[in-house]
Amino acid sequence: MANNLLQGKKGIIFGALDEKSIAWKVAERCHEEGAQIVLTNAPVALRFGQINELAAKLNAEIIMADATSVEDMENLFKRSMEIFGGKADFVLHSIGMSLNVRKGRSYTDLNYDFMLKTFDISAVSFHKMMQTIWKLDAINDWGSILALTYIAAQRVFPDYSEMAESKALLESFGRSFGYHFGTTKKVRVNTISQSPTMTTAGSGVKGFSDFFGYADKMSPLGNAPAEACADYCVTMFSDLTRFVTMQNLFHDGGFSNMGMSPALIEVQE
Amino acid sequence: MANNLLQGKKGIIFGALDEKSIAWKVAERCHEEGAQIVLTNAPVALRFGQINELAAKLNAEIIMADATSVEDMENLFKRSMEIFGGKADFVLHSIGMSLNVRKGRSYTDLNYDFMLKTFDISAVSFHKMMQTIWKLDAINDWGSILALTYIAAQRVFPDYSEMAESKALLESFGRSFGYHFGTTKKVRVNTISQSPTMTTAGSGVKGFSDFFGYADKMSPLGNAPAEACADYCVTMFSDLTRFVTMQNLFHDGGFSNMGMSPALIEVQE
Amino acid sequence: MANNLLQGKKGIIFGALDEKSIAWKVAERCHEEGAQIVLTNAPVALRFGQINELAAKLNAEIIMADATSVEDMENLFKRSMEIFGGKADFVLHSIGMSLNVRKGRSYTDLNYDFMLKTFDISAVSFHKMMQTIWKLDAINDWGSILALTYIAAQRVFPDYSEMAESKALLESFGRSFGYHFGTTKKVRVNTISQSPTMTTAGSGVKGFSDFFGYADKMSPLGNAPAEACADYCVTMFSDLTRFVTMQNLFHDGGFSNMGMSPALIEVQE
Amino acid sequence: MANNLLQGKKGIIFGALDEKSIAWKVAERCHEEGAQIVLTNAPVALRFGQINELAAKLNAEIIMADATSVEDMENLFKRSMEIFGGKADFVLHSIGMSLNVRKGRSYTDLNYDFMLKTFDISAVSFHKMMQTIWKLDAINDWGSILALTYIAAQRVFPDYSEMAESKALLESFGRSFGYHFGTTKKVRVNTISQSPTMTTAGSGVKGFSDFFGYADKMSPLGNAPAEACADYCVTMFSDLTRFVTMQNLFHDGGFSNMGMSPALIEVQE
Repeated sequence: MANNLLQGKKGIIFGALDEKSIAWKVAERCHEEGAQIVLTNAPVALRFGQINELAAKLNAEIIMADATSVEDMENLFKRSMEIFGGKADFVLHSIGMSLNVRKGRSYTDLNYDFMLKTFDISAVSFHKMMQTIWKLDAINDWGSILALTYIAAQRVFPDYSEMAESKALLESFGRSFGYHFGTTKKVRVNTISQSPTMTTAGSGVKGFSDFFGYADKMSPLGNAPAEACADYCVTMFSDLTRFVTMQNLFHDGGFSNMGMSPALIEVQE
Repeated sequence: MANNLLQGKKGIIFGALDEKSIAWKVAERCHEEGAQIVLTNAPVALRFGQINELAAKLNAEIIMADATSVEDMENLFKRSMEIFGGKADFVLHSIGMSLNVRKGRSYTDLNYDFMLKTFDISAVSFHKMMQTIWKLDAINDWGSILALTYIAAQRVFPDYSEMAESKALLESFGRSFGYHFGTTKKVRVNTISQSPTMTTAGSGVKGFSDFFGYADKMSPLGNAPAEACADYCVTMFSDLTRFVTMQNLFHDGGFSNMGMSPALIEVQE
Repeated sequence: MANNLLQGKKGIIFGALDEKSIAWKVAERCHEEGAQIVLTNAPVALRFGQINELAAKLNAEIIMADATSVEDMENLFKRSMEIFGGKADFVLHSIGMSLNVRKGRSYTDLNYDFMLKTFDISAVSFHKMMQTIWKLDAINDWGSILALTYIAAQRVFPDYSEMAESKALLESFGRSFGYHFGTTKKVRVNTISQSPTMTTAGSGVKGFSDFFGYADKMSPLGNAPAEACADYCVTMFSDLTRFVTMQNLFHDGGFSNMGMSPALIEVQE
Repeated sequence: MANNLLQGKKGIIFGALDEKSIAWKVAERCHEEGAQIVLTNAPVALRFGQINELAAKLNAEIIMADATSVEDMENLFKRSMEIFGGKADFVLHSIGMSLNVRKGRSYTDLNYDFMLKTFDISAVSFHKMMQTIWKLDAINDWGSILALTYIAAQRVFPDYSEMAESKALLESFGRSFGYHFGTTKKVRVNTISQSPTMTTAGSGVKGFSDFFGYADKMSPLGNAPAEACADYCVTMFSDLTRFVTMQNLFHDGGFSNMGMSPALIEVQE
């Protein structure tokens, strides 16, 4: 289904861990559409994931980087520009992890050192990434920056805990930096708010499978699969969406605008 | 810049009047991307516009239809299916006109017969279009229905008058019918909220050129041009956005998420 | 619990039918808080409801008026000013009725004459009311205009049918006219988006009681009762909320910002 | 204008510095309405502000507390319960400060240690406050928790810098904790999004006075003054708003729903 939408473009993909990762599928689809890809992830992800397989398949280089380290970000973008022989055209941020959730702390008993670390990993990393791109002038005019987010930034999903705040933060960084990139470089910054997805990370969260089913019933088209999300990211990296910026785009089968679904009421009866 | 994104697809485009029309440019781009097009507009538009030129260029048929007439809608979709030899894959609604604005009535002195006629033309026509598609089963599974709208549905632009309400209505029809089409046919329904655009219709509105400049300054990327809107519509008709539904998508250079632009303050000083 | 919040104020309440009506309870509470009230409703409501009892209890006059008739609106506000010996300070619009729902027409088989009549009754009446107030200069500076609405204006509740569009229209009229009243008269215009409520009108809708239970479970505080809505209206009519305008205010126990409630998942298991 | 709306209630007010502070005016109005108040602020604020005067006037105790310190929060709520002889009924969080703004760092050159400290002071303090209340069971059923915020959480105001993210975070904490407090204690949590206000803190921000004028022109009622904000807070602490929760309430003279004001265009001409 390749349409050469990204022919000649160069992109950096954060967060591919294994073949269930949305970032993995985005990388594959971008490659199919003609883009040259650099993959990046944290050292621990390189150890436990299968990113080497993906790199081999896409003929892509991997640059290890801790997204909370400004030094690592600088190295990543400098090295990428060497590899590309120029600036990037698009970047995907797909990173998130909650220490408090991992440690089993409830929302009314959060540890604040964990919380700030969660924000640093899941949201401030997006600002660090963009500030590094800004300072190194590492993206071409009319480039496209994307991050993946979740509707918990707008509405309460109790089990999502402090990731709600992480996503609210992430989306705000997108809007704010979108202004600066837009006025000076014509670069757009958007977030895609994706359906719950059966990734290795996602399925680890408490009650995830019940919740996945709930969202699937509530969404007129069902939950959006990871493959469809990759397709949508391709459109956002292509030249066909140049004037869409500072938006949070729901890719969720309609979940976000449903108030009540008869399908749920029926289940209850 | 063709990518064959709509190869083999069939689409019906409402509202092309002349080469400044967004619908005109959407039709051209869809054709470039491989789609077969049927054009439709009101009889009066056929008389004053240049739609015959467009039809000739795209090798498209024109079917005259008053979008407020259920009979005309039925004829349109029946005829289209004959022409296509099957159902449609996508439809664009780009229709709007305010009688009170045209007659120079202020928002605090509206004529209510005009108002209901305005709603019928600018918004109820969208429901009539969709209900006809629904009843005739005139769209393929995974098809895409779009309408063009404006941010006056969310925020107040005093000169836009009763068109604000028309657009609020239009967007609500999109969400509501999106539920029905989604659950039964996997068809998505969305609205694109476009920057102010120098169309023949738009530029007739009082104070439009001042307003156009204001919006341009407020938008980090400037106002989105009609050509870019056509590109964006192509992505929404393509198979790359299958799980985006019931959304109102801002295509506006960032206007919708700006609170204040330094560019405006500078002008005032 | 009276606090004299409306001492010396004069208000007009549309839509009280019987003691289950929100408007009924608003009228009672406004009276308790010291306001002089004029009640108005359609002739048919006067015949079938118990509004005479309420009028007697509050020492209020009733003025019959069809809210879709500009003439009736003019008569209502002229007569009210005579009764009050001056302008009004606040007005409540609590009117809504769907002909298509009443006739059992599904959302994909709507009758368009019914639809326009539904809009006229449920939403355009709000503009007619405000335009009459505007033309007759029938409200004091810093006055307060309110209408009751429902979250179906933002999200899809399939059984709510064309009332979703009616409420989207109503809220848009509030914003638009709020600009005009604000800049010239310091009058504020807001809508209150109330929980599903067991009124005589509400409970007639198909599947209402299932839906009432669903919303109650989804809302952290449960559905907001009619009495609490009346209290909230009192604050919006008082001088303590003078700078709140053009807002849609959710009075819903938190429903609007919930994404998923564990209480619902448990029921399903 | 006292109406005894808070007769017998006990409240804790964070953030009163001097008589320009919104929190100062809220404390005064709550006292007028019959509430017993405890004032709290950081040690540095006690040194530079005039909070002792306010305490004397309201016959209120002051408890020094660094809102980023969980220990200080625990001491504050324990001591308050001793003073009150029981739990609190309402709490106001009015705290915010950006280290990067203070140090003159632009949004594209932020220091990340400063940023995390800004978030801790301006937003995480709200979670710490609520988590302490939760653990100590320090608020009565049907109590009310409020925080002051700004529309930069939704839209971009470039000079507001990382305070945009702080406010997005703050509002998300309100929603999330609102769920927990609502379901277990019937306590509501809301944020009030106030117009730009000429406080000692506010007026220190770069370009503030230009911006203040811009917002004033854009708002149909003009910018909402601090006194009116105090009135609005009183309604939110009173029993008249018990079912409003998890909301962000704009108190802004209509700014948030304006798309364009003719008043601004005229200035430009």
